[in-house]
Amino acid sequence: MEEQEGTLPQKADFSGWYNDILWRAEIMDVRYPVKGLYVWFPFGFGIRKRVYGILRELLDRDHEETLFPLLIPEPEFMKEAEHIKGFENEVYWVTHGGTTPLDIKLALRPTSETAIYPMYALWVRSHADLPIKVYQIVNTFRYETKHTRPLIRLREITSFKEAHTVHATWEDAERQVEDAIARYREFYDRLNIPVLISKRPDWDKFPGADYTIAVDTIMPDGRTLQIGTVHHLGDHFSKTFSIQYEDTKGQQQYCHQTCYGISERSIAALISMHGDDRGLMLPPEVAPVQIVIIPVIMKKREEEIMQAAELLEKELQNAGYRVKIDTRDLRPGAKYYYWEMRGVPLRLEIGPRDLDNGVVMGVLRSGGKESLPRADIIAEVNRKMTEFTAALQERAKTHIKDHLVMVKEESLVNEMVSKGVVAVHWCGNRECADRLEEIADASVLGTEVRTDLIDQTPGTCIICKKPESVVTLIGRSY
Amino acid sequence: MEEQEGTLPQKADFSGWYNDILWRAEIMDVRYPVKGLYVWFPFGFGIRKRVYGILRELLDRDHEETLFPLLIPEPEFMKEAEHIKGFENEVYWVTHGGTTPLDIKLALRPTSETAIYPMYALWVRSHADLPIKVYQIVNTFRYETKHTRPLIRLREITSFKEAHTVHATWEDAERQVEDAIARYREFYDRLNIPVLISKRPDWDKFPGADYTIAVDTIMPDGRTLQIGTVHHLGDHFSKTFSIQYEDTKGQQQYCHQTCYGISERSIAALISMHGDDRGLMLPPEVAPVQIVIIPVIMKKREEEIMQAAELLEKELQNAGYRVKIDTRDLRPGAKYYYWEMRGVPLRLEIGPRDLDNGVVMGVLRSGGKESLPRADIIAEVNRKMTEFTAALQERAKTHIKDHLVMVKEESLVNEMVSKGVVAVHWCGNRECADRLEEIADASVLGTEVRTDLIDQTPGTCIICKKPESVVTLIGRSY
Repeated sequence: MEEQEGTLPQKADFSGWYNDILWRAEIMDVRYPVKGLYVWFPFGFGIRKRVYGILRELLDRDHEETLFPLLIPEPEFMKEAEHIKGFENEVYWVTHGGTTPLDIKLALRPTSETAIYPMYALWVRSHADLPIKVYQIVNTFRYETKHTRPLIRLREITSFKEAHTVHATWEDAERQVEDAIARYREFYDRLNIPVLISKRPDWDKFPGADYTIAVDTIMPDGRTLQIGTVHHLGDHFSKTFSIQYEDTKGQQQYCHQTCYGISERSIAALISMHGDDRGLMLPPEVAPVQIVIIPVIMKKREEEIMQAAELLEKELQNAGYRVKIDTRDLRPGAKYYYWEMRGVPLRLEIGPRDLDNGVVMGVLRSGGKESLPRADIIAEVNRKMTEFTAALQERAKTHIKDHLVMVKEESLVNEMVSKGVVAVHWCGNRECADRLEEIADASVLGTEVRTDLIDQTPGTCIICKKPESVVTLIGRSY
Repeated sequence: MEEQEGTLPQKADFSGWYNDILWRAEIMDVRYPVKGLYVWFPFGFGIRKRVYGILRELLDRDHEETLFPLLIPEPEFMKEAEHIKGFENEVYWVTHGGTTPLDIKLALRPTSETAIYPMYALWVRSHADLPIKVYQIVNTFRYETKHTRPLIRLREITSFKEAHTVHATWEDAERQVEDAIARYREFYDRLNIPVLISKRPDWDKFPGADYTIAVDTIMPDGRTLQIGTVHHLGDHFSKTFSIQYEDTKGQQQYCHQTCYGISERSIAALISMHGDDRGLMLPPEVAPVQIVIIPVIMKKREEEIMQAAELLEKELQNAGYRVKIDTRDLRPGAKYYYWEMRGVPLRLEIGPRDLDNGVVMGVLRSGGKESLPRADIIAEVNRKMTEFTAALQERAKTHIKDHLVMVKEESLVNEMVSKGVVAVHWCGNRECADRLEEIADASVLGTEVRTDLIDQTPGTCIICKKPESVVTLIGRSY
């Protein structure tokens, strides 16, 4: 549906590359006539469907999927003071139905705490009703005044997966936080995206939470992208919304809650982590097309080659692969370009010579051409897919390693943070953090970093030189 | 999560039954604090997921799924005059972002023509781009001033499947209309819901369409429910939004379009068609739980019975069934009541005597108890499921037959239409239709009825006595 004009900018020019790949690989159409709203192309939606399929699979183990209304009445929305302070400048308000002004204004959910928790107050009666573990995948809205960017900073977040759990005790909720972190790690492992998990500083936690654990990754330009958060809500919301249970002794107790979310930023990370100068590179599990077959037609033997291609397609489909034969009237080179842009892991070419030799030519999107014996093609394709996934993992791991450094000298922080994420020792004091952020022109991401890529031994605070200071990450974030 | 108080009203009191079953079977929670907005309970969502799974499967054959923004800028929304006239009184308007008034008001989509078609104008260039067949499953909004009702008349339609196609010619679009009708028939066949398909009268077609084909069913109280529509849009929208293609001769031509939709009314129909005085009755394909195993525990042999139940569960799961063992500390009778309310097709009971005799007791939700040999349990369960589906089909077919009559006497119309759908001969004249609707206190549903349940031979118009008049349906609709 798009004209192929010009070429993809190099990935080293990440901003240009990112903007361009979205339409060249038919992920998002950015021409919708409202700032910050975008259209999913069918191909992009195919990726989204599979990514969220993984998320559903992981959560369905012990969560239940549900759906709450988009519109939140103003009185409910205004109940939790800290929470509303965090969102009041960016909430869209519905004020009219037809030409009639509404008696009660309705907020488009920026997140669903205030839609869900009044219902939890009705759902929870006794300790036997707990825990509740529910999630939904919905559109949420933010009136962004900053620069918007497809999949990253949106006015309509089209695909927000939000989970909301209710527990008897603070400790139960804490265990749920750990469980959610493990689940998110597993999710990003499946996408071959390495993550940095840390505890956000107190001033940057979710409005209304006891604490927030965040999942970040490092984008190609070294800036960080927050791609998941897990919040321990304590009993703040349960006190506001009267979510109480009767304990085994017949006493009314306030519940403890958590919530955690992942948005289509997961797909921004997927695209950005794996793509290269030629386009997308998609992990097989989420690639809408996993294998493309290119018949290399010679007039004389056209029919024979087409039959061989169709037989191969059927065989691969029966083995569970998503396969396409490209029969368009285009030069092979144009076809290679097209499918490489769309990140298809494996291309199989069949020409007359391959037929005669009982082989097909396999070309992996990550590089390398190999003649594969036709007789063992399923085993060979399985092997190539494993090889491809390993290559993606290796590239991603190297990228994170190369963009994460420990810095001990105050004078080096600014330079190093312009290249990636910097780990420093920090005393935990707000003043030192402010100074650090000022020097670095970056943000404190968090402490209690869950990674073995850096040494977490306490040391001297990089600002005030206090000993026994903890490791914290700082970075410039999207 | 709900207290089980009182009992379900009889289905003969349909309105009371419908309201009650929604919470008793944990489908929707109606206590959300905004009129016309409801919450999907996880169990209800499980039904929704499977019903929409069928719809996706049918459309994915040759449509592509996608996602367009919810918010439509006022200028786009106002472009098509007829269309806007049809919706202007029921559109929700977003007027503020935070406390800032928006420069351009944003409509919450009541349907997505005006969101999608400006993009189609960019997507379509040449005849080679056609046809486009795209669908999305989204939330849409109507500011309903009439009485709202869960799943039937909502302010947030949470699950609107809308397809939008683009074609070169009017005839291509017409063929697509027929294709969509066939697909919708197949969908409702899978849900065992008999439908009446007819061409809506001109004054009741979709705003901006050439014509509308509607899918109705008959609810237990004899009123009709529109559960699908297919619209031939001609070139009205393509002229408004400049959707043009270059034909093979290099000439610019306006496209022809169709759109067709199904909402969660499909689930209202599912519940209402099959349920009975004891609760839901769900076709196996969409039942979140297909088989419930009730261990009938005797203290002495508790462990042995539990092991047998678990083994049975595993065996049935391996055969592809969704199975639950109910181990709650409740009387068997309370468990029967619980699972019957939730429409589980088959209940299997295992007690000590069954163990000794090598059988399990099978009880079908549609009635009938039978001792099933344990050794052949998979084959036996398959047979029972087929028996259950046949029973559902038979009951539904009988219901439609009993509520559809041909009436030839004007004086009988009002009485008969209070019991169901009435077929009459009608000359096609608006005045006669107005008179008919007045007499009947009902609406003309449509002509060209696609059913073999009534004789479609032309006859004398029931009002003006004009000969060779066509058959039309009239009914009182939800």
